Amino acid sequence: MNILDDVNHLLPVAGVQLATAAAGISYADRTDITLIEITEGSTVSAIFTQNAFCAAPVTIAKQHLSSNTPRYLLINAGNANAGTGQAGIDAANACCDAVAAEFNCMPAEILPFSTGVIGENLPVDKIKAVTADLSIDLNPHHWLAAANAIMTTDTVPKGVSCQMSIGNQVITITGIAKGVGMIRPDMATMLAYITTDAKINKTLLDQCLKDAADQSLNRITVDGDTSTNDSCVLVATGQSEVAISDLNLKEFQTALNKVFEILAKALVRDGEGATKLITINVDGAENINESDRVAYTVAHSPLVKTAFFASDPNWGRILAAVGRSGVKDLDINNLKIFLNDICIVENGGRSDSYSEELGQKVMSETEITITIRLNRGSANSQIWTCDFSYDYVKINAEYRS
Amino acid sequence: MNILDDVNHLLPVAGVQLATAAAGISYADRTDITLIEITEGSTVSAIFTQNAFCAAPVTIAKQHLSSNTPRYLLINAGNANAGTGQAGIDAANACCDAVAAEFNCMPAEILPFSTGVIGENLPVDKIKAVTADLSIDLNPHHWLAAANAIMTTDTVPKGVSCQMSIGNQVITITGIAKGVGMIRPDMATMLAYITTDAKINKTLLDQCLKDAADQSLNRITVDGDTSTNDSCVLVATGQSEVAISDLNLKEFQTALNKVFEILAKALVRDGEGATKLITINVDGAENINESDRVAYTVAHSPLVKTAFFASDPNWGRILAAVGRSGVKDLDINNLKIFLNDICIVENGGRSDSYSEELGQKVMSETEITITIRLNRGSANSQIWTCDFSYDYVKINAEYRS
Repeated sequence: MNILDDVNHLLPVAGVQLATAAAGISYADRTDITLIEITEGSTVSAIFTQNAFCAAPVTIAKQHLSSNTPRYLLINAGNANAGTGQAGIDAANACCDAVAAEFNCMPAEILPFSTGVIGENLPVDKIKAVTADLSIDLNPHHWLAAANAIMTTDTVPKGVSCQMSIGNQVITITGIAKGVGMIRPDMATMLAYITTDAKINKTLLDQCLKDAADQSLNRITVDGDTSTNDSCVLVATGQSEVAISDLNLKEFQTALNKVFEILAKALVRDGEGATKLITINVDGAENINESDRVAYTVAHSPLVKTAFFASDPNWGRILAAVGRSGVKDLDINNLKIFLNDICIVENGGRSDSYSEELGQKVMSETEITITIRLNRGSANSQIWTCDFSYDYVKINAEYRS
Repeated sequence: MNILDDVNHLLPVAGVQLATAAAGISYADRTDITLIEITEGSTVSAIFTQNAFCAAPVTIAKQHLSSNTPRYLLINAGNANAGTGQAGIDAANACCDAVAAEFNCMPAEILPFSTGVIGENLPVDKIKAVTADLSIDLNPHHWLAAANAIMTTDTVPKGVSCQMSIGNQVITITGIAKGVGMIRPDMATMLAYITTDAKINKTLLDQCLKDAADQSLNRITVDGDTSTNDSCVLVATGQSEVAISDLNLKEFQTALNKVFEILAKALVRDGEGATKLITINVDGAENINESDRVAYTVAHSPLVKTAFFASDPNWGRILAAVGRSGVKDLDINNLKIFLNDICIVENGGRSDSYSEELGQKVMSETEITITIRLNRGSANSQIWTCDFSYDYVKINAEYRS
């Protein structure tokens, strides 16, 4: 497996073309519309936000996906078309109609996606005005342009490619994603589009997507806020000679999971205002609910997050978060907490081997692992999060200004 | 009932004296030790943090309370004596021993309390060094001094008095409290000491305390982090002529609840970095779990909190938080959300009657109420929270520096 973790050199995937355009929805001087064309005969899987106030495009995309195999993914940045009621549904449909007319397909063959401010009406005319531009721009090499055009408060485009041999044939996987606030996946998070030229039937592709997302996009949190627009699409064009079946599924899934993990971590690393990537491992729990609960309680603690921002080994805040996580009959004398490989807590308090200097050394790094050993069972969880900085407040206080 | 919401003019309570001293635990040039003397024959109730990593003084206070009626409450600010293992237990006991020797009582008649940084050893000698000063300073009028001495990152002292007639007799209730980070009560929050000269038996006093805290201290959140040291003590000295029984319980409880509510709101108003007090009302839920879940999800959303800080009527973030709160089969077309009396969301999106100007007007206020009508049942919840500012990050990034 050859991972190319470089958004500037993403590999084309046979059967996929991309186009971008500048519709001026809410940003000046940048592209904000992306179209991804998927060749006929592809299979497409998608997962969507569990937020009850899901956005209009999510509602429409689910409907279209249930009745047709998508040919086009249409994405706008700068306006979420969420909390917009019937007007939002009408707007999402109107966008599909416009693209269908331009590309000579059915509206139901288009999946619409939106990301940006919630509660403002989508300016459909601005999107209609660029459909011809999109038609001209379609190109299998426009991945970087697409990774840029889907961004909102992201500071860097995010994408990864992977090539691997299965049998004697080579397949390619390329994916892009955007974050970066309102990130606490309840399925996937944000927008992510991953494509491959392998041939996979719909049932298997659905499984592959769920498996990959559950270990990556569903394991990250920036601020605990689940977006109304989260969507993740996995496309298999079948243009390579490789068909995925039970025989080679494991190889393919391993590569796919790696692609998803790289995208997920890139989202956290670029979390709003983030300066550090924090991996939280919880093991020895009685069950997954318990290990998840501890992991997310630590990950969402504003006090833990601000201590990481300050590179302050204020380990007492991690201890306090574990203590309030609601694990029943937790024996604090039997658990251990580590910062990287430094034991900070054991026997109910600070480890005898711990020193402020050792803690400070770890906290000064930009990628840090917290390990919490509950020592009461065999379940474990791994999640990724980031710190909490002045810039998070600044970005979100000034978001609409 | 006469409420005196002025920490500068708190009323003495017969049978209660207070003293403060400067032990130099972690602050220069200020008092950091408080002693509250309770006359013999009083009844005392207390509730403590549910955090599994509860502090050593909490462990000791629980033990002492279960075996004796307390005569002294000893409080230090600047060091939480939490996450300190056996050394912490020894330190808390040593402090009780020192005070017992000075005041000629049993160590088990003293309840110790600590608040401040977690994980550092308590400097017992510094506390021992000021016990004689405490003895000299004891005075029924030292409430303001005590309210100041228990503060950590609080910016203002917090206290309230209440006088009321029951029958033809007057009783007094006076209480003080401190916050202000790591505030998400799982019982009470922070430290609070409320006293009255009414006569109440222990069973009834326990009930009164639970009832009052459940409607006040247990309904506030600054950052979702439950402290290791939260403690709330209610003292009834019985020095007035009024005995509380089923006959007059309702009157007394109403006054007590009001005192607790004022203290609880004062804590939120002075939450770390807070600039706004936000009341969240959720009604029409199927049960209390559901209304609590919606209320706390909105209250803990960093995106909602930063929007309030910015006075930005970004109501989509409230909608998104309600949507992700996990209410089963939530009908978004049947719920309504209000900012004060302005309807912002109905029929699944922005209310037709809403305008940015109306929203902006509400958001510019310093005390704001969010009302969420789920319209699916009869349960309701009310909680109080604050916004999320640059200063929260600053205070907590620099807490130990």
